[in-house]
Amino acid sequence: MSDRGSDRGSERGRVSKAKIQRWQDGESVRAWDRLVVEEPMEIRVGGEAFAVTMRTPGHDFELALGFALSEGLVDDPKSVETIRYCAGEDPETGLNTYNVVDLQLRGPVLVPTDLKRHVSTTSSCGICGTASLEAVRKQCAGVHDDPLQVTAAWLATLPTALRDAQEVFARTGGLHAAGLFSADGRLQCLREDVGRHNAVDKVVGWAATQGLLPLREHVLMVSGRVAFEIAQKALIAGIPLVAAVSAPSSLAVDLARESGMTLIGFLREGRMNVYSGEHRITA
Amino acid sequence: MSDRGSDRGSERGRVSKAKIQRWQDGESVRAWDRLVVEEPMEIRVGGEAFAVTMRTPGHDFELALGFALSEGLVDDPKSVETIRYCAGEDPETGLNTYNVVDLQLRGPVLVPTDLKRHVSTTSSCGICGTASLEAVRKQCAGVHDDPLQVTAAWLATLPTALRDAQEVFARTGGLHAAGLFSADGRLQCLREDVGRHNAVDKVVGWAATQGLLPLREHVLMVSGRVAFEIAQKALIAGIPLVAAVSAPSSLAVDLARESGMTLIGFLREGRMNVYSGEHRITA
Repeated sequence: MSDRGSDRGSERGRVSKAKIQRWQDGESVRAWDRLVVEEPMEIRVGGEAFAVTMRTPGHDFELALGFALSEGLVDDPKSVETIRYCAGEDPETGLNTYNVVDLQLRGPVLVPTDLKRHVSTTSSCGICGTASLEAVRKQCAGVHDDPLQVTAAWLATLPTALRDAQEVFARTGGLHAAGLFSADGRLQCLREDVGRHNAVDKVVGWAATQGLLPLREHVLMVSGRVAFEIAQKALIAGIPLVAAVSAPSSLAVDLARESGMTLIGFLREGRMNVYSGEHRITA
Repeated sequence: MSDRGSDRGSERGRVSKAKIQRWQDGESVRAWDRLVVEEPMEIRVGGEAFAVTMRTPGHDFELALGFALSEGLVDDPKSVETIRYCAGEDPETGLNTYNVVDLQLRGPVLVPTDLKRHVSTTSSCGICGTASLEAVRKQCAGVHDDPLQVTAAWLATLPTALRDAQEVFARTGGLHAAGLFSADGRLQCLREDVGRHNAVDKVVGWAATQGLLPLREHVLMVSGRVAFEIAQKALIAGIPLVAAVSAPSSLAVDLARESGMTLIGFLREGRMNVYSGEHRITA
């Protein structure tokens, strides 16, 4: 296998900086924070779209090759003749295609029927940079005008409330949690799942069965990190404030800022970082 | 929307027990551990397969509804007429279909072209219980006969080795890491990504470019949890030992046991739980 074109991804930024509001012990300061970069990468096989994955740029050819192997597209790396970035702009979308990697296989492409049969369309697969942000905006007018206001002191209580509610499963150490809080401070719904996206889908599904959508006066708290998908799911449900115990990704912050969503990370031990929508938080 | 059939998932077990070997300070004891249950769920729309997600059973109808909303399949919960489990066995596979949920929509099903266009086939989407385990076994003879032997003391050094190597990105708090160690103890390749599967794919892709596959004498260490997909990717690459800082899922343990892989979880602070393949570990 030879590489045509360089793995430019490895030279591009994997960390970006963002101006944030940092709260500690009830007081806030302006600060800079570092974010892990998240961008979509489309993997093509012989020029045809095969999969899209949200990834951190870097080692993109390795990612494409490893993906092709572990998905059973090829069972021998030698079956891959070349790996290259698609050059220039996509003629249909006008988007830069440095996030598109094309694998040329030796001989005809035979995608296993198993792979074709189990076709999935998740938001992590359906995203292509700017185009995806446009797509989300189409589905949702954003939450710019939502009047929700919360105090920093109340936000500081959410991690404990979430953890207490998930006590039953905490013992496995293997579950992500998503909790929906109403503006009066009550935990209305908690769902846990081995997949963090599923936990959020379950919460949104619960709200749908209760006739509560859009969730204009609610706060979503998640136990882990916030990548693009989680922010997107919350936005589609109309949730104006998302808080997480861990870090957000760059694309999650971009989406939150564009849509007027308040996004909080590292909410734990009386501290938090506010990445967007700080006007909803009072001392 | 009315539910036909009950959400049986909510009554089924979300925690399972497993007999493990627990190491602390160089000594091992037999113990029981609790695992979060991971199982595939197929979402059908009007009887047609739409997506498969790995999930923890429970609140399956909410998951299906929330997924349909956040993926843009419907923009109003009222468009969903019924949600039910498919009854009995699948005529083609003979599998029980309690893990298959069917949404009936009002009117004709119009899957947005955006969803159709960005079709993805990830291992989290291509899996269906026993059938999937069969599929993996077909791709890979297992690692039963691999003679790799490691000491508990050396394993205890891996988390620090991994963390030290990922120092550059540790400051963002947003990256998963996967590290490949050779049998002589050296870290050969470390990759980080916002998606844990990507980090493993990058490592496997790197090994492929180096002509190292199958990785019969290597250890894979990951920074987070081990769900089915991670174990599957490692197995396809021929890796006989996978260690993780956090918990494995039930399905990851099942796969490891069936394929002869050594699976270690909660490897930190001088402790670890060995879920399978303990014969590869010496004091």
